[in-house]
Amino acid sequence: IFRGERLQAFSDAVFAIVATIMVIPLKLNIKEGDIPSDYILHDHLYNLYPRYLIYLFSFVLVVDTWYSHSRIFSIVEQVDDVIMWLNLLSLLFISFLPYGTGLISHFQASRPEGFELAVSTCSAIIILTGLIMVVMLLYAFRKQALLHPEVADNTDMRSLKIGLLTTLSVNPLLALGALFFSLFHTESTQIISLVFFYCMGLGSLVVRTVIHLYHRRKCYSLPDFATSIFRTVASKSRTEAFSDGVFSIVATLIVLDFTATIPTSEAVRNNHGGNLRYALGSTRFIYLSYVASFCIVGLLWFVQYGMFHFLKKITPTLSFINTITLCLVGGIPFVSSIYVIFISNEESLKTMYSVDNQLVAMRASVVLVFLVGLSQLLFWSIALYQKRECLSEEVDRYPAEILMFVKIMIFPTVSGILFGITFTEGISAKHVYGFVIATTPFLFLLAKFVFLIQECMKTRA
Amino acid sequence: IFRGERLQAFSDAVFAIVATIMVIPLKLNIKEGDIPSDYILHDHLYNLYPRYLIYLFSFVLVVDTWYSHSRIFSIVEQVDDVIMWLNLLSLLFISFLPYGTGLISHFQASRPEGFELAVSTCSAIIILTGLIMVVMLLYAFRKQALLHPEVADNTDMRSLKIGLLTTLSVNPLLALGALFFSLFHTESTQIISLVFFYCMGLGSLVVRTVIHLYHRRKCYSLPDFATSIFRTVASKSRTEAFSDGVFSIVATLIVLDFTATIPTSEAVRNNHGGNLRYALGSTRFIYLSYVASFCIVGLLWFVQYGMFHFLKKITPTLSFINTITLCLVGGIPFVSSIYVIFISNEESLKTMYSVDNQLVAMRASVVLVFLVGLSQLLFWSIALYQKRECLSEEVDRYPAEILMFVKIMIFPTVSGILFGITFTEGISAKHVYGFVIATTPFLFLLAKFVFLIQECMKTRA
Ligand SMILES: [K+]
Ligand SMILES: [K+]
Ligand SMILES: [K+]
Ligand SMILES: [K+]
Ligand SMILES: [K+]
Ligand SMILES: [K+]
Ligand SMILES: [K+]
Repeated sequence: IFRGERLQAFSDAVFAIVATIMVIPLKLNIKEGDIPSDYILHDHLYNLYPRYLIYLFSFVLVVDTWYSHSRIFSIVEQVDDVIMWLNLLSLLFISFLPYGTGLISHFQASRPEGFELAVSTCSAIIILTGLIMVVMLLYAFRKQALLHPEVADNTDMRSLKIGLLTTLSVNPLLALGALFFSLFHTESTQIISLVFFYCMGLGSLVVRTVIHLYHRRKCYSLPDFATSIFRTVASKSRTEAFSDGVFSIVATLIVLDFTATIPTSEAVRNNHGGNLRYALGSTRFIYLSYVASFCIVGLLWFVQYGMFHFLKKITPTLSFINTITLCLVGGIPFVSSIYVIFISNEESLKTMYSVDNQLVAMRASVVLVFLVGLSQLLFWSIALYQKRECLSEEVDRYPAEILMFVKIMIFPTVSGILFGITFTEGISAKHVYGFVIATTPFLFLLAKFVFLIQECMKTRA
Repeated sequence: IFRGERLQAFSDAVFAIVATIMVIPLKLNIKEGDIPSDYILHDHLYNLYPRYLIYLFSFVLVVDTWYSHSRIFSIVEQVDDVIMWLNLLSLLFISFLPYGTGLISHFQASRPEGFELAVSTCSAIIILTGLIMVVMLLYAFRKQALLHPEVADNTDMRSLKIGLLTTLSVNPLLALGALFFSLFHTESTQIISLVFFYCMGLGSLVVRTVIHLYHRRKCYSLPDFATSIFRTVASKSRTEAFSDGVFSIVATLIVLDFTATIPTSEAVRNNHGGNLRYALGSTRFIYLSYVASFCIVGLLWFVQYGMFHFLKKITPTLSFINTITLCLVGGIPFVSSIYVIFISNEESLKTMYSVDNQLVAMRASVVLVFLVGLSQLLFWSIALYQKRECLSEEVDRYPAEILMFVKIMIFPTVSGILFGITFTEGISAKHVYGFVIATTPFLFLLAKFVFLIQECMKTRA
């Protein structure tokens, strides 16, 4: 029997991996070398919209499964080998999901057969994962030594068990419905199957709210500990671990993309007369955009870190907004790879629409960063609104609150201005873009500096 | 001013990413579809040996840099925005290292120019990272509120500072030597440059030992806390976080490889008459080998988890062996991708040496798993040897010790037997391999089961 912390941390990382890797099917299937001359990036990106929705859906689905995991370990304090095994098995099953949703992304156009099979694959994955989790919960309830002492002392253990089983079963049952109806090859059953399937994203939220309300009304007999299980979706520390996981996988994907741009010795021989120095010099824009992506991810993490520092407790609403933020952050490797293709190597762009494509690539990154900034702002606004419940008293110290707010505002403001600039004629958008990206980190330093001066003046006064 | 835990956890993850991604340049540049008919995998793998050494070297180098980071945060307890910023900057610099060592891997054959440039790139990265870390340390010593209270109370702070600065500067100074001598284009300076460069891997170990001995002799005046900084390389909890990071990035790389095998709708149309079911059926070996890789990684993590559970403290020797284990674990995505190419799709293998290549692919995976198992065994043996210092008392309970030993022995034994089988004629190695991989998890369950029975019998007696 071990304490479960490291198991939880490892699971958080795996769930974060699975969620973040969902972004892979978005990747454009074009290469710097051979872009068709009539290629229009705007249309390509626009036509990908079903994939964005599938990405959002599958990200939320993984986070939902992770909530179930989180719920189990909010009552399980110690783990034995069996829990360990069941947990690894559930991680194995859920790790198939990027493959399944990848199938959905690739075959959403080829209805009915391909798509149908893709949907049933995903449903089967959700059912198997859910099944293992239910077994895990039942096992823990059987072997009470593993449970949190407050749960073990609980007189009304049965209703706690039923409540937990219900929340855990919602998505697997919906998936079972989707799988069942996908077996009949008529149009109406297919639609029912899809309804069941997509209900997993939002439906579970609704069902959970109902259970939550039901429990609040009826189960006043449950101790505080038990009701708090239904009132929170994941603890602050686990949400931090999950978020760190997403940020680190995003960093991994960016580093991987960057490492893939190392020129081969053949390419150096053929295109640069065997001179590696020239070859590396010709890709200098790639380094800059790598540094830019890394800095943006680092700074967004820094903002998130700051907000969570002041957070006392994470409510379901905040958790939901955090999920959306992370989902958007997961899109950064996607836009940065587009940016690299269209900005990095001007010489290789001999297409008719190259300038338009460059602007669109810039706009895509700017819009994404804007959205991330906006959702961080929303997070903080709601946290401030629920101040008494969510935030520590530290935030009330006047300048700390302001500094946090300024930090959060930097990204939406800067990206908003940049978005405007990409529409302004007569300005070389590319150079402004590079300049602004390079100066953004210093805005954070400036904010800090102003804050320090104010502190000094206050101390003197 | 924040507590530094989350910053440390995030940094551990980034260092783990950087170390594990070093494996990317090993990737074979062949595709399932077009393997030349005279392709001999054995020779290809054999000729890659300089890259294995570069991988080992760069992995150790990252771990060494991570040790420096770990040392800084063993005296820094609280972080402010400046530390946060410097830390992100050092992570940015170190994250360039996979690109640099990738250059070394690709251009080790094209001496002198390409290789020289690659070595100076890496040296520059190490110098910049080291510089930031030195600044971080000096800043922390200046702003004493950030330091651990025991350090702040330390009377002999100067010798602590010098000791830490020395350990932090070893690698950057060696890199400076390598960079300096790489500027002269003569053969002898190149060799000196390389000597400096490769000294970073092992040299720092030697220098550190010297400092360690020196400090032990001379600095008896330092309190326990300060000497313990020089006696350990990284705390147990940070080593766990780093290890989890490596395991999770390995999992990520495996999932990424797996997700990349999703057939495109064109491929399904052209090769399988538009029937996705056939297309997916034809790649069933890929699923099996994915499950196998995931299970192997999961089980190796499970063994590591078990060993660390009994560990009270991690000595530099144990830490070194753990690094080697992790470096080997980092090779799993590499061998599993080879395995997928040569085993998965028999129909596509029309080369002269296809059967030999299959056996070699199997042997490569088996040998790697054997080596990982062996280094885990070595870890445990040394931990048992240094029992009083390293292990918790729990391990002395008779069956726990045996069970741990059995768990550790499973991988070396199974892979040793499998290695033998690949040389046995008349046996279909492929099917034995599949069978053994499928039954290995049950060996762990069996061990647990036997253990439980024994426990029961003991309770009764
Ligand atoms: K929880
Ligand atoms: K991680
Ligand atoms: K982490
Ligand atoms: K969340
Ligand atoms: K430490
Ligand atoms: K981790
Ligand atoms: K280590």
